[in-house]
Amino acid sequence: MEIEVTQEKFAKALNNVSRIAVGKVTLPVLNNVLIRVNKNKVSLITTNLDMAITDYLPVSNSKDGVITIPAKLLAEFVSNLPKGEKIKLSSKGEKVTISAGKYSSIINGSPADDFPELPEIDEKSSVVFKMSINDFKNGINQVVIASSNDLTRPALTGVYFNTYDNILAIAATDGYRLAEKQLIKNVKSEIKVIVPTTSLQEVLRAIDEDMEEIEISFNEDLIRFRLGEIEIISKIIDGSFPDYQKLIPKDNNIVINVNREELVRDTKLAALFARRSAGGSIVLEAKKPNIFSIRSVASELGENDSVVTTEVSEEGKINLNSRFLLDALNVLDEKEINLQFANRINPIILTNKKSKDYTHIIMPLNQ
Amino acid sequence: MEIEVTQEKFAKALNNVSRIAVGKVTLPVLNNVLIRVNKNKVSLITTNLDMAITDYLPVSNSKDGVITIPAKLLAEFVSNLPKGEKIKLSSKGEKVTISAGKYSSIINGSPADDFPELPEIDEKSSVVFKMSINDFKNGINQVVIASSNDLTRPALTGVYFNTYDNILAIAATDGYRLAEKQLIKNVKSEIKVIVPTTSLQEVLRAIDEDMEEIEISFNEDLIRFRLGEIEIISKIIDGSFPDYQKLIPKDNNIVINVNREELVRDTKLAALFARRSAGGSIVLEAKKPNIFSIRSVASELGENDSVVTTEVSEEGKINLNSRFLLDALNVLDEKEINLQFANRINPIILTNKKSKDYTHIIMPLNQ
Repeated sequence: MEIEVTQEKFAKALNNVSRIAVGKVTLPVLNNVLIRVNKNKVSLITTNLDMAITDYLPVSNSKDGVITIPAKLLAEFVSNLPKGEKIKLSSKGEKVTISAGKYSSIINGSPADDFPELPEIDEKSSVVFKMSINDFKNGINQVVIASSNDLTRPALTGVYFNTYDNILAIAATDGYRLAEKQLIKNVKSEIKVIVPTTSLQEVLRAIDEDMEEIEISFNEDLIRFRLGEIEIISKIIDGSFPDYQKLIPKDNNIVINVNREELVRDTKLAALFARRSAGGSIVLEAKKPNIFSIRSVASELGENDSVVTTEVSEEGKINLNSRFLLDALNVLDEKEINLQFANRINPIILTNKKSKDYTHIIMPLNQ
Repeated sequence: MEIEVTQEKFAKALNNVSRIAVGKVTLPVLNNVLIRVNKNKVSLITTNLDMAITDYLPVSNSKDGVITIPAKLLAEFVSNLPKGEKIKLSSKGEKVTISAGKYSSIINGSPADDFPELPEIDEKSSVVFKMSINDFKNGINQVVIASSNDLTRPALTGVYFNTYDNILAIAATDGYRLAEKQLIKNVKSEIKVIVPTTSLQEVLRAIDEDMEEIEISFNEDLIRFRLGEIEIISKIIDGSFPDYQKLIPKDNNIVINVNREELVRDTKLAALFARRSAGGSIVLEAKKPNIFSIRSVASELGENDSVVTTEVSEEGKINLNSRFLLDALNVLDEKEINLQFANRINPIILTNKKSKDYTHIIMPLNQ
């Protein structure tokens, strides 16, 4: 195996794939990147068994072959070499020689046979979507905040890709809050799969400013993302996602429009006092004709009260976890947002005032 | 007590003092900032018992008085208020009311009697130096890297301010390396005190771009720094600092001049392979007539070798901890630097090639 490649290209590709290369004690080869050279096309592959990242790198001079090398060591080594340098990588048995100008190193690799590769996706039986990478990124960022870390409930540690009414929507919930984004309209195919949040976060990290489109392919038990020269294949979570449409209340009668930045500030100020009380609880209250107040529940630290003047048609209040509220406010993206709540039992619904493709609901806290 | 002050000024002053306000379980009042108002002059004071920070804040409207308030809560509250807002703070018993535009809060304070204030420095018996704040900052940054965290050897957890040959020098050592900077020349007074590194780090953090001068006053058991409107008083470490001039070898016969950035790169590359071996050991070797090489000791990861072409008059090698070498290279500030070593027993001496007011020595590792 032998390749010649510029420092910049090689460093970038290694950086793209090396993040997930964290070996397990039982399988140290997962620390490694698999480098496969086939007719001047180089594939760099890493995997953590749940997902795999491949970056394709065109090179001018090469000899076919395959080897695995500790990924982080190689990535750090190459990124510390001088920019503009031409790097030559060649393997002889398990010894990999890297030379670049006055620099020369030998890295101990290991044979590719030990490297567990994920199955390829079956092109024929798969459902394929293409969309703007910015819309994808924005949508994923808006829902992953609601997904859970609780490994005892695996279905909640992922994002649910599902179709209804010819819409492809994504949703996540941790049992206390739920976020849904309608990603693509006029969809013909049917999809119901849960994709690990950790895999989606790697897809987000792989996004580059100059990428425009992402291709998503679904199979029975795999999902594949293609963006630029990068391909990410992830397993799908085996489990059933809650029937979340039922969780969104239909009878919330208190409807408030409010400036998003102002509510962020009011929530932060109230949250300072709420910190030590259960769940960082703060109280939102609507009073006729035009008082919407945000206040902390008085604690040993003191208390805080802020008032927003806005039209109020029905009166009522709700206690919320201030961190959950801030999380939701930070991913809503219009200047004005819309709140709907009813009483202390129904969840609150947060949406942008104009666009209605994103819905966030938060369960109330007990008084 | 009552003051009126702009959000910007108050936020900045609170930010300056609140960092060290970390209460101990036995003395929770250390979480608080003491606010003392005396004839339109406001002092904000925090202390961790080893040191105290005071920021003076001129205000237009005030009523005299004194109170203490949880420092981090107040600092975060004020920094989240809208910029440009006029803030009114007033106390009634232990309740402190803060109002700013539509915002209104009550913070529970506590009486000033419980607050432990550090003694004032005695102006008459103290020795005073003034110097450029940039030179001070640069000098402290160059020596603190060599100071120790080992609380069982308190004298090594500080920076030694000492005078000799009419020079005020600062020095620090952790037993494995030593850094000395000559700060001020033509000094008449005599000083030998050890200042806690943690206090000096707070002085560095308090430095603002628009400050030009720092005043340093020494007393028997206190040191005071004045910079802008900020005053930092710190206790001095009771202990004796090693007679460090004796530790700097006089007979290092291998003298190498080398480009600093090139040596940083070479050291980083070699260190990648050295990581798992004892102390991150790398080898520097000089060979006649012009070979200076930096290499890792071969490990299970592989090995690395870089060569610098430079004049070599004597041959020899030395093993060094790569992190210590990088620390030193990062605070040397000329393009070309000078290395002096002898054999595997003497420490290596690093200086800038031209200016000789900074000296860094590192003990060699055993082969």
